[in-house]
Order: sequence, then C-alpha cells, then structure tokens
Amino acid sequence: MIRCIGIAGGTGSGKTALSAALAEALGARAAVVAQDWYYRDQSHIGIEQRLQVNYDHPDAIEMERLARDLALLKAGHVVDAPQYDFTTHTRAAVTRRVGPRPVLILEGLHVLYDADLRALIDVKVFLDVAADLRLARRLRRDTGERGRTAASVIMQYLEQARPMHDAFVAPSRQYADVVIEGDFEIEAAAACILARLA
Amino acid sequence: MIRCIGIAGGTGSGKTALSAALAEALGARAAVVAQDWYYRDQSHIGIEQRLQVNYDHPDAIEMERLARDLALLKAGHVVDAPQYDFTTHTRAAVTRRVGPRPVLILEGLHVLYDADLRALIDVKVFLDVAADLRLARRLRRDTGERGRTAASVIMQYLEQARPMHDAFVAPSRQYADVVIEGDFEIEAAAACILARLA
Repeated sequence: MIRCIGIAGGTGSGKTALSAALAEALGARAAVVAQDWYYRDQSHIGIEQRLQVNYDHPDAIEMERLARDLALLKAGHVVDAPQYDFTTHTRAAVTRRVGPRPVLILEGLHVLYDADLRALIDVKVFLDVAADLRLARRLRRDTGERGRTAASVIMQYLEQARPMHDAFVAPSRQYADVVIEGDFEIEAAAACILARLA
Repeated sequence: MIRCIGIAGGTGSGKTALSAALAEALGARAAVVAQDWYYRDQSHIGIEQRLQVNYDHPDAIEMERLARDLALLKAGHVVDAPQYDFTTHTRAAVTRRVGPRPVLILEGLHVLYDADLRALIDVKVFLDVAADLRLARRLRRDTGERGRTAASVIMQYLEQARPMHDAFVAPSRQYADVVIEGDFEIEAAAACILARLA
C-alpha cells in the first residue's frame, strides 16, 4: 500500500526542510510532491496584473489537478507533474515525472485545507510555529536567496500571507494527526512522523 | 494631584506613538518621560563589548534613578533627566529638564515590570500586539529611519528582544489597569486612557 504524508503549516514554518529530511531518511522509498508546483498559470493576464494576484489564497492553486495526480500516484501510476516559473508566474513548458513510491510526501500551505487532498493523506502533519519566528525566517530567506527587499517582503506578509494564514492555514490545523509545535528540531520531527508509518 | 500614565508593551507595540498622541491631546498639561533615557552608561567597557550588551534586559536600565525622578516629578519638583547617546551607548553630557505637570506619561518596555515604578503609576497601560506585527514594525523602523540591515534587526530580535519579551515584558501585562489589544487605532486607545484620568 502506498501511503501519503501531508505537511501543512504557515509560511516559514519549515515544511520544505522537514520534507527534505523525510525524503533523505526514506531514500528511494519516497517521492516529494510540492503544492507550489500546481500554481495556476497566469499567462492570460498582463505582467503587472500577475503581481497583484494573491498567491497565498488556496484559489491560486489548481487543487483538482493536484488531488488527481496524488490519487494516481497512490494507485501506482506515474505522473507528469506541472512545474511553475515564479519569475513569470506561468506553468513551465516542462513537467516533472514522479514515479510511484511506497511513501509520498506532499507539502504546502493548503494541503490540509482541501477536503479532496485530505482524503488521500494518511499521515496529516501541521507545523505550528509562532508567527514572529515564521516572519523572521521568511525575511531571511526572501531577502537572502531570493534577493527581495525587506520592505516588499513585509508588505506582502501583512497584506497577503498573514490574512490568508488566519483564514485558511491556521484553521486546517484541526485536521492534523500530528501537530509539531514551537521551534522544533527537524530530525526529531522527522523521526516522530516516520514512527507513524512503521 | 499629579498623576502618571505608564505605557508598557513589547518592541513595535506602539508605545511611542501612543505617548505622543496622549501628549498632543493633553498639551501643556502633560510631560513625557521615556525609559530609554535611563539606559546605563557603558563607557567603562570597550566599543566592541558595548555591542554585546543585552539592551532589552531590564538591568540595562538605571531603574532606581528613573523611579527617583518620577517620584520627584509626582511631588512637584523639577528633574534633570539623563539623555542617552545610542551611537556610543553612553550618557549624553546634557540633561533634559522636565517640569512637573498635572499628567506624566512614562513609556518603556519595562515600566510595569519594576515594582518601584509600578507603585508610582496611576494608570497602568499594556499594549498587547501580535509578535509578528511587532517584528514587522520594528523591521520597518530600524531598516528605514535607523539604517540597519534586515539581517541584523532579525538577529537582535531573535537573540535579545524576543527572549526578553517572554521573560520580562509579557508577564508584566498582569499589572495593567488597561490592556489594549490587537492592531489598535492610536486615537481610540488615547481616548480610552484619557477617560480614566477624568
């Protein structure tokens, strides 16, 4: 039986790092699927308008396709997952082939929000990290590797990420089988989740 | 009778803005006293060491002198309050003369933490603002008008401001007569406090 670990949590909560740690621990037994690959293509609107889209809202994600791909993977099929180009806000021309593996790791803001996705997830994980720590991490990441200004990161956080977190992400905590709180150790959290699979 | 309004709350909670709004509303009837004027002089240590001091800890403030000055002001005396030079972390050569006024507005991180100060405060106010909003404001202020980098502001927040908030500032909320919560309107908060004086 193919099982799915779903990892939700706010921006900066450590979803990507935890997914990577799980994938490393599981090696060839696991495949990672990121909600972010399924951002809707925005090529039907102009470049200026694309910057106005609220990418923290669940509607920015093509949830139907994500749920369909996850169902296919759980049924043992190969999937050609979309890839997203964050610089142009469009789907990339290439897809990423994901093979069925005994463990699927799905990570993203809204993976516990969508009921169809939830029904496919066997171990539902929510990372509950204090909002100021998450903002600090997001700032470090986006002003560092992504080259944005602190002012633009803060504006987007206050206008989009924070209200969407309160409306959609935080309430999805109620569906979690495992809630990992505080400034957790990645390795300890991964071990806790892997114990659920055993 | 001279009365004192004390305003505490974490970094970025709006203490200075609220004090200014109260001072403006009260005009010549009020004088503001800032806890920050009473930072201890660090001229006995080297420049490098001065940058290592935890300025968010209550011990960084000369509380005894602040309490003494406040008691003098409440008794109708004039006070020569110290002034602090944040660039050198030393007391400035000049002092600031504060005359007795019917209303004294004392603002600072730890003004509800110190028992001697608390005994002199007639209206104890605590500003309870979400930590991520406070960090966002601190970042905007310190990377803007104070010219610091986002990375240095975040490091200081995580290593000093945040733990000191949890240890000293947040627990002092219990002593407040008025707790102002959330992303409050300055004018509404000022009106609420002034009503207590009437």
